[in-house]
Amino acid sequence: MTAYRRPLDVVILAAGQGTRMNSALPKVLHAVAGRPMVAWAVQAARGLGARNVVVVTGHGAEKVETALKGQGVVFARQEQRLGTGHAFLCGIDVLADSLKGNGQEDADVLVLYGDTPLLRPQTLEAMLEDHRARGSALTILTGELPDATGYGRIIRDAQGDIARIVEQKDATPEEEAVGEFNSGVYLMDSRASELAHRIGNDNAAGEYYLTDLLGLYRAEGEAAHAFKLADPDEVMGANDRTGLAELEAILRRRINAEHMRAGVTLQDPERISIEDSVQIARDVTLEPGVILRGQTVLAGGVTIGAYSIVTDSVLEAGVVVKAHSVLEGAHVGAGSDVGPFARLRPGSVLGVGVHIGNFVETKNARLDAGVKAGHLAYLGDVQIGAETNVGAGTIVANYDGVNKHPTRIGAGVFIGSNSTIIAPRTVGDAAFIAAGSAVHDDVPEGAMAVARGKQRNIEGWSRRYWGGMKGKVQKKLPWLAGWLERQEQRASRGPKV
Amino acid sequence: MTAYRRPLDVVILAAGQGTRMNSALPKVLHAVAGRPMVAWAVQAARGLGARNVVVVTGHGAEKVETALKGQGVVFARQEQRLGTGHAFLCGIDVLADSLKGNGQEDADVLVLYGDTPLLRPQTLEAMLEDHRARGSALTILTGELPDATGYGRIIRDAQGDIARIVEQKDATPEEEAVGEFNSGVYLMDSRASELAHRIGNDNAAGEYYLTDLLGLYRAEGEAAHAFKLADPDEVMGANDRTGLAELEAILRRRINAEHMRAGVTLQDPERISIEDSVQIARDVTLEPGVILRGQTVLAGGVTIGAYSIVTDSVLEAGVVVKAHSVLEGAHVGAGSDVGPFARLRPGSVLGVGVHIGNFVETKNARLDAGVKAGHLAYLGDVQIGAETNVGAGTIVANYDGVNKHPTRIGAGVFIGSNSTIIAPRTVGDAAFIAAGSAVHDDVPEGAMAVARGKQRNIEGWSRRYWGGMKGKVQKKLPWLAGWLERQEQRASRGPKV
Amino acid sequence: MTAYRRPLDVVILAAGQGTRMNSALPKVLHAVAGRPMVAWAVQAARGLGARNVVVVTGHGAEKVETALKGQGVVFARQEQRLGTGHAFLCGIDVLADSLKGNGQEDADVLVLYGDTPLLRPQTLEAMLEDHRARGSALTILTGELPDATGYGRIIRDAQGDIARIVEQKDATPEEEAVGEFNSGVYLMDSRASELAHRIGNDNAAGEYYLTDLLGLYRAEGEAAHAFKLADPDEVMGANDRTGLAELEAILRRRINAEHMRAGVTLQDPERISIEDSVQIARDVTLEPGVILRGQTVLAGGVTIGAYSIVTDSVLEAGVVVKAHSVLEGAHVGAGSDVGPFARLRPGSVLGVGVHIGNFVETKNARLDAGVKAGHLAYLGDVQIGAETNVGAGTIVANYDGVNKHPTRIGAGVFIGSNSTIIAPRTVGDAAFIAAGSAVHDDVPEGAMAVARGKQRNIEGWSRRYWGGMKGKVQKKLPWLAGWLERQEQRASRGPKV
Repeated sequence: MTAYRRPLDVVILAAGQGTRMNSALPKVLHAVAGRPMVAWAVQAARGLGARNVVVVTGHGAEKVETALKGQGVVFARQEQRLGTGHAFLCGIDVLADSLKGNGQEDADVLVLYGDTPLLRPQTLEAMLEDHRARGSALTILTGELPDATGYGRIIRDAQGDIARIVEQKDATPEEEAVGEFNSGVYLMDSRASELAHRIGNDNAAGEYYLTDLLGLYRAEGEAAHAFKLADPDEVMGANDRTGLAELEAILRRRINAEHMRAGVTLQDPERISIEDSVQIARDVTLEPGVILRGQTVLAGGVTIGAYSIVTDSVLEAGVVVKAHSVLEGAHVGAGSDVGPFARLRPGSVLGVGVHIGNFVETKNARLDAGVKAGHLAYLGDVQIGAETNVGAGTIVANYDGVNKHPTRIGAGVFIGSNSTIIAPRTVGDAAFIAAGSAVHDDVPEGAMAVARGKQRNIEGWSRRYWGGMKGKVQKKLPWLAGWLERQEQRASRGPKV
Repeated sequence: MTAYRRPLDVVILAAGQGTRMNSALPKVLHAVAGRPMVAWAVQAARGLGARNVVVVTGHGAEKVETALKGQGVVFARQEQRLGTGHAFLCGIDVLADSLKGNGQEDADVLVLYGDTPLLRPQTLEAMLEDHRARGSALTILTGELPDATGYGRIIRDAQGDIARIVEQKDATPEEEAVGEFNSGVYLMDSRASELAHRIGNDNAAGEYYLTDLLGLYRAEGEAAHAFKLADPDEVMGANDRTGLAELEAILRRRINAEHMRAGVTLQDPERISIEDSVQIARDVTLEPGVILRGQTVLAGGVTIGAYSIVTDSVLEAGVVVKAHSVLEGAHVGAGSDVGPFARLRPGSVLGVGVHIGNFVETKNARLDAGVKAGHLAYLGDVQIGAETNVGAGTIVANYDGVNKHPTRIGAGVFIGSNSTIIAPRTVGDAAFIAAGSAVHDDVPEGAMAVARGKQRNIEGWSRRYWGGMKGKVQKKLPWLAGWLERQEQRASRGPKV
Repeated sequence: MTAYRRPLDVVILAAGQGTRMNSALPKVLHAVAGRPMVAWAVQAARGLGARNVVVVTGHGAEKVETALKGQGVVFARQEQRLGTGHAFLCGIDVLADSLKGNGQEDADVLVLYGDTPLLRPQTLEAMLEDHRARGSALTILTGELPDATGYGRIIRDAQGDIARIVEQKDATPEEEAVGEFNSGVYLMDSRASELAHRIGNDNAAGEYYLTDLLGLYRAEGEAAHAFKLADPDEVMGANDRTGLAELEAILRRRINAEHMRAGVTLQDPERISIEDSVQIARDVTLEPGVILRGQTVLAGGVTIGAYSIVTDSVLEAGVVVKAHSVLEGAHVGAGSDVGPFARLRPGSVLGVGVHIGNFVETKNARLDAGVKAGHLAYLGDVQIGAETNVGAGTIVANYDGVNKHPTRIGAGVFIGSNSTIIAPRTVGDAAFIAAGSAVHDDVPEGAMAVARGKQRNIEGWSRRYWGGMKGKVQKKLPWLAGWLERQEQRASRGPKV
């Protein structure tokens, strides 16, 4: 918006253990809506166009650093846990050179947390605008609750600026009645880098508190401004798994509400989970229990049936996924229908008007327009031409025990039921494969392949077979016992001459 | 109840666009509990024994008219959107002849809306009784809320009749405090047809308001009576998809509560969806996640397992449907068990004590008493006699690429696993089909059919095969690599003589 | 804790019909969280180390007694329904001998109910401690509600002991305002056995009321102490199916909260159902819709995918069960992965690192380390050695129509797709079965078995086949119609010489 924007550096505090999580995983790696909590903070920082993002790690540092690898963040280790002020110091010190190198006044510094995934990028954007517009040295993100018990309270001065932050244990009854609280999210000018070194630990706990920055800025003659959240839930953190579930529920409702506003029908949104990376067009219908994950894109008019799970898949206009289907890494052409009980695995590319029925699995499979595979089939490492019909029970046997081999099946082919196509194989256009065949040679265009045994009928066999286990048959299979008896009566009468 | 009832004509206003739905579909066609909102109004009208039902369409008129085709309703197009009074006029004009032709006083006229699906037929029935019993000319359905902000408020006169309806924007603070509100549902005598023509549009918006009828009736010297809803939720409308989801949740809870009262166990009713057309007997158990739709009928003692979806199916006494099954258009005999992961498609008719197991699909299939199909089978276009056992992996291949053909299988037949029966085929009673057979000829009664290749064992083959891809085997299949090595050592020692 | 504890006898009142349940099943047999309500009372009594547990049955007595058979409880039939005092008398009379035989003062007597499954054993334990510590003759479990309408109110005397219990209908406005209510759970000394005989029925209803024991004890000069519940929900009963669903919801939330505290991640706990018999280690993740039942044990790091149902199964460390799987009576080795759409049935014992994919069923199957069965298979009554690969569509045909037979498959075997192994069969180590084979003979170690037909290709067949149904082909299969036309054009041109 403005022609010039100061660069923004972000320090994310993510060193805590989260004892009450009761976990081998550091607290900030616990996920909400499919993404570790700390990754939400990193994403928010990225959304603000941050120049540098420093993540302060401590407990489980290696795991946190591994999880965030490749996301362009810098890590600062807090070797000892000496308080939030100390953690910030560890982080800002990493930036000291870059901050100084460009002059003291040239950057904004934002402090975020690895366990508050609900904080919206838009909120931070608005806070940043406000901070810059007012020419503030320090802006603190605050919230307001009817009862802010437990939080540090914001005490304003006569000018409406922040005079003090009073912790719960130090609050007078009057201060306790204050509903405005400190979120811990601070936006500061570059002096933060220097002032952080002046935070002391002369207190009961012997810890360095980040809140001391407020006094230090005021001692510099700067006013501290508050930026108040419209929705105090945004700075909710999670201390245990119940809290985690609460964050996830809030996030799920937020995401679902946005899709509903955008014209998506959610049948019972309380039972539908959509990750925030998913894109959904207008007039899509999601039945109860649907789960959408990752880079999934649903075009207009798509319907996803109850309890289906779609991950990293693109579904074109009008696709119908019936109940109980699982799609991952699939691309489904317009007007296709899939399921129920279908599984499309990565590399499944379906053309327009393809039909995939129940108990069918596809993997690394290109199915051209109009292909039908309606029942109990496995199609792996295969290309199938337009309008080919894949019979029930068909298996494309792509594995020889060590390697997977490809199969090409032409257009307009009819594959009879219970056939096996043993890769690598080529079946020509318009070929016909007899039901029950194990196809171990290529099939030319327009040819019929038969690869099964010839039928022999052995008359009278059942009488001997079932007769041989007569007692059991009588107990277990009354109808057959009756049949056997009728057969014997007939035999005893002898042939009519 | 009464010997003579005046005929009832109903006008349903359904012309609105519902911009906030953000949809290509007109608002009134959005569904709750499986039925378009406007269809709920039509059903309510039908439930009252209405003589004529006029649906006033406008936005997306053709879609609405198509959706309601065949339901015996008359349509009136509102070409311009000039207000509710105008919409009603469009509708009542269609009836003008029928109203006049039978004399002015002979009919009741009810105004309903296409976006309030929660209004119960019983409520309307009670309102109608009250209207008739009091000999009213105009009865308005009202509700009461602690805070009725947004609604038109009902201002009563000294007699307790309705004096005025004050819109939100015109309300004094005193009037704002009134909790009784106008639902918009009016019951009137035949004069409505004539009075509607007197509604003016001399107001800020230049619109014709239906509420003006109140003044017009009062000018005729008639009192306007209020009929107050016990539950104001009944006239909730939906303006966006969130509202739609709320209506659906209320409806779902209402339907579920009725079934629980009638003796049905719902394990976690918040996760169970039942359309109102479904009939359920006492002592049926529904596990979490069950969805019941359409003309489904469940007899006593039926259990439906978690996440199963049953549509338009009849399940007789004691049937057990296990988890994750999908039934549609099926009839299941007493004592049968189905699932998990079973799919019964239309035309599946199961006798008593039939067993359908996992990954089994039936379609247009009659399975007589005691038939068992336990695993991975497709049974399409087939009749199977009593006590026949269908082996795992059996496919009835009913499709030749263009047509579907029927198959008849007798009673007491044993179909070996992985068999294929190629339709059209007849298999006699007590026949036995060897596992792995592709049955392409008929099988006489009591005969065994074998239609598979003979087995050859090629000794030493694996050593050559795996030996040929030795490097890969060593990486991927350590056990096999060890076996290969042992084989080579043995060979190198030579034969012991 | 204390060196000597008086024995405890428990009387559980379980004779009521529960008319509003609207059921053929007696009220106390309706289940919450997978267990009949009365069984929760029995379990609570057992948890207290009760010497005798008497269940007073009446309505549906035989069904109740059958349901509790083998649980070491004694039954007392209340033939006529004459009130709670009478029911208790029926129960305590059964104990009279044991109480007297050991002297009057030697036992505690606890009254519980068959329809209050939320009462925690810990609560009763604390009540018992308090009762004994205070040397009480009578302790009544009470609760406190903001509005206790409907309950009998606890009126305390100047000493804080219980003076009277006033029923709703007899309460003065002052008494109505009392929030402390009588739960009906009484703990008494052995005199209860004798005092119960003095309860009269000189009241409007002509019933014997258990509450009369309070007056009788006070007449003996004993003080009645109250033990107040922290959570009044614990004595909630269920009178109808809606109440049953509410109890279940409370219990589900209680169980889920305990697991979350213990370090289990529940993705949307409102949609997850866990029976209280299930054990879950730290850092297990449960996705939405998971249902865990019976004696299930999940080791650390296990993940259960959405909508999967696990019953009576043990899953070792790190097992991943993907969505839509159903496990029952299975043991799954560390690091194995199962599903989606897998079904493990009783007797499935999987070693470490086993892979079970979609549409695969195992039953009475031992699969050693590293076995892979990825697609559409049925493995019943079978042992499979390490690292064997089971091809897609494989069926182990274990049933001959009457008996099930076992199959042994060695280690390192490769079973080609769509094979059938006809039990009883032995397949040696490192054997190779060609795809599509029906294996009816044993296969020696290292051999390849081929048991299928040879392939024949019949050139030009499709042209005749499809040409024969030309009209239909043109309508239904446009691509094939085009192909046919091209073929005919080519033929009409004749061979190029």
